[in-house]
Amino acid sequence: MTDALTPAEFAAAGHEVIDWIARYLREIDQYPVLSRVTPGEVRSHLPSSPPAAPATWSEIFSDFEQHVLPGMTHWNHPGFFAYFAITGSAPGILAELLTAALNVNAMLWKTSPAATELEQLALDWLRQLVGLSPGWFGITTDTASISSMLALAAARERRPDLEIRQRGMAGRTDVPTMRVYCSEHAHSSIDKAAIALGLGADNVVHIRSDAEYRMRADALSDAIAADRARGMLPLAVVATVGTTSTTSIDPVPAIAEVCRQHDVWLHVDGAYAGVAAMVPELRPIMAGVDQADSLVMNPHKWLFTPVDCSALYTRHPHILKRAFALVPDYLVTSVGDEAVDFMNYGVQLGHRFRALKLWAVMRAFGSDALASVLRQHCALAAKFATWVEAQPHWQVVAPVPLSVVCFRYAPPNASPEAADSLNMAILDRVNCTGRVYLSHTKLGGRAILRLAIGNARTDESHVAEAWRLLLDAASQVSVARQ
Amino acid sequence: MTDALTPAEFAAAGHEVIDWIARYLREIDQYPVLSRVTPGEVRSHLPSSPPAAPATWSEIFSDFEQHVLPGMTHWNHPGFFAYFAITGSAPGILAELLTAALNVNAMLWKTSPAATELEQLALDWLRQLVGLSPGWFGITTDTASISSMLALAAARERRPDLEIRQRGMAGRTDVPTMRVYCSEHAHSSIDKAAIALGLGADNVVHIRSDAEYRMRADALSDAIAADRARGMLPLAVVATVGTTSTTSIDPVPAIAEVCRQHDVWLHVDGAYAGVAAMVPELRPIMAGVDQADSLVMNPHKWLFTPVDCSALYTRHPHILKRAFALVPDYLVTSVGDEAVDFMNYGVQLGHRFRALKLWAVMRAFGSDALASVLRQHCALAAKFATWVEAQPHWQVVAPVPLSVVCFRYAPPNASPEAADSLNMAILDRVNCTGRVYLSHTKLGGRAILRLAIGNARTDESHVAEAWRLLLDAASQVSVARQ
Repeated sequence: MTDALTPAEFAAAGHEVIDWIARYLREIDQYPVLSRVTPGEVRSHLPSSPPAAPATWSEIFSDFEQHVLPGMTHWNHPGFFAYFAITGSAPGILAELLTAALNVNAMLWKTSPAATELEQLALDWLRQLVGLSPGWFGITTDTASISSMLALAAARERRPDLEIRQRGMAGRTDVPTMRVYCSEHAHSSIDKAAIALGLGADNVVHIRSDAEYRMRADALSDAIAADRARGMLPLAVVATVGTTSTTSIDPVPAIAEVCRQHDVWLHVDGAYAGVAAMVPELRPIMAGVDQADSLVMNPHKWLFTPVDCSALYTRHPHILKRAFALVPDYLVTSVGDEAVDFMNYGVQLGHRFRALKLWAVMRAFGSDALASVLRQHCALAAKFATWVEAQPHWQVVAPVPLSVVCFRYAPPNASPEAADSLNMAILDRVNCTGRVYLSHTKLGGRAILRLAIGNARTDESHVAEAWRLLLDAASQVSVARQ
Repeated sequence: MTDALTPAEFAAAGHEVIDWIARYLREIDQYPVLSRVTPGEVRSHLPSSPPAAPATWSEIFSDFEQHVLPGMTHWNHPGFFAYFAITGSAPGILAELLTAALNVNAMLWKTSPAATELEQLALDWLRQLVGLSPGWFGITTDTASISSMLALAAARERRPDLEIRQRGMAGRTDVPTMRVYCSEHAHSSIDKAAIALGLGADNVVHIRSDAEYRMRADALSDAIAADRARGMLPLAVVATVGTTSTTSIDPVPAIAEVCRQHDVWLHVDGAYAGVAAMVPELRPIMAGVDQADSLVMNPHKWLFTPVDCSALYTRHPHILKRAFALVPDYLVTSVGDEAVDFMNYGVQLGHRFRALKLWAVMRAFGSDALASVLRQHCALAAKFATWVEAQPHWQVVAPVPLSVVCFRYAPPNASPEAADSLNMAILDRVNCTGRVYLSHTKLGGRAILRLAIGNARTDESHVAEAWRLLLDAASQVSVARQ
């Protein structure tokens, strides 16, 4: 017994899978975007106990098609407009195939030099594309959640005199309460990171934002000063370039100045929007980021790279390393300092060869085409916003700086609460068509619909269809309520 | 512009990649296991700036073959005996290909019901295979490092009266110093988890082990009692089933009894060895684990599943959820309690569709064959140990309960220090042949060689070759030193 399939069987099965995927990518439009199964349905079709005997790949694949596929929500569908839309692009898929076959763990330089060096190269390419200066150290992680957690851990380690790495925070009277600041529109991953790191959810200070959902630098400065006066330690500020609800862009230059004055670590969450800085006319979104201490951008969000691929950058790799380097006897190597061992820069010892797909995507598209797709997404969002604005009883409720539109149906005789219900009913109807999938958020306590463009295969026809379905649903819902 | 390749171009490129991988898997024996490049070499062959224009897949693949491949250390090589050997098996590779094409984020049940339900099913299959009782909740993460960190975070949350999630640990006088206990042979990820969680490296108590490198339950009990007497809070014990250096198995039943008496959370690290319990005669390694509170096993280690796939189990999902559930407005769904939203059980919001490969591997092999490969690996390790024992001046330095052998060359006239150097020199020579890759550890301060069997394609010929090369290297090294 060696592998479950011989190389020849693998090749035969592989050709079928490749052809299936080519067809899937061609005909993906014909799948319902949002799965229609009910909870427990997928599992009910599959045996509850593991098989003792081997199955052929055909049998496995047939079960995949029959029982698994109907339970998929198709994130790779061009009508996927929920959350942040993403893309498993062709070069990304092919590179992931190679990554699975090579199956390396790039925990040490030595355990796969090319995985480490290609990652350093690809992340430096990305740095150049978004216009950051040299001197940033990059490492991939699986998610922005982890990238931001590592950044905040580095911020915590910035004060070695507190000896938090060594002595922890509990049971000590000599460690002040530590505070993290972000806007009220920052991503929940910041709160989760503070929870995980033992800082506490209460110590994430959600700074109020302006009318366009951007953190107010003056309020930030006041909050830091007030905490200082109370004997607390301002640990880090998280500015967001592209918030989740509205893609608002915090005023990073002003925030960076506040951080400089108060000597606080600045982490920038550009998980969704950071990559848009490669579009020349959008380059200003990165203003001030070069003054930050750390930054996260997710190529698996808006850069056509299959999940997972989050890019964490810091200008202080020695601090990140001080926070996490720990080399047990069984992982000692003697390669020397010119080689980076990624395991020393985070919690995770295992390190996937994610660089291959990021590198393949940047090469297969080329930066001109990447910028052109991102520009096109923003143009489509702007166009959708004009359709909404031109339609009676519909309104765009937040600026549209990038590729996401927040909007709402607000018929004149409906109370705000009734309009909330109408919008959620419209959303349900639209998503039930299987043609598009949108999600929602809340702004000022009100239910808001979101159209998020980010799939490379999305074109105007898909956006127009979403709008048509929304209008249809609104008229049906309104009739139903009369 | 849509994707970088049309579906037809994808298919053509995909067929070539599949054929290349089939050949790679067939001829993998002909690659040097350990890459021979020097630091910076891979990167020096590649342009330092990103291309503006697109490249064809042929161009990308040609650079991959020419510049990247020589820099890979081949973890999928049957002569890979370092760390813990792993396998990117054929069904696992094909499933990863599908996962990349579907490219879903299973953060919520709704965002891909089948991904969530197949994960619950596959993890329940694995639970059954290793003989654990029902009632364990499973979730995959990317690495055992994260799985163990989440388990310890749950242990911390077990005392809601301390309000650590909400208020954190810093700047408080009402939170005692919290302690985590593991053996001196526990994995470094436990220390890293304690560092990340803000518990502090000093508060990981490394309990001494017996002559066979197993945690001493009496020493554990004493340490917990002593800490209690000092007003500290014993938070969690981490028992290891299959330690990294020697694969020793901590006495979980006795440790579980200590944990019960002291009311302490018990986490079991079975990242490498847990899966071996599916071999009937190895089932006893799981004794006592059903009394634990959490458990990690890594299918991407010894279960032929491509990285990443770590399985975290807990008998208290409500505590794990209490530690991490946080639902922002933009992620509220109305599916109901019967659907599990994985984002509520950890730090990471993004959740790859890892279940597909784990399910495909279990189906393609079937549990009888899985057990038979694991059994065969253990038999090969036992055989290698007899060869070592039978050879003058060589010794097996630790019991061989599973598939890893710790051994050492100890010529009679060499001091322990000189023998250390000889062993490291032997290791270097053997690894430089490119035929096998072994790693080392330290036991009792002495350099020890490790042969770790875990690749599905490894057979007796590879183990025999490793032994032949070790003997050759020893004779060369000894001559060189005379």
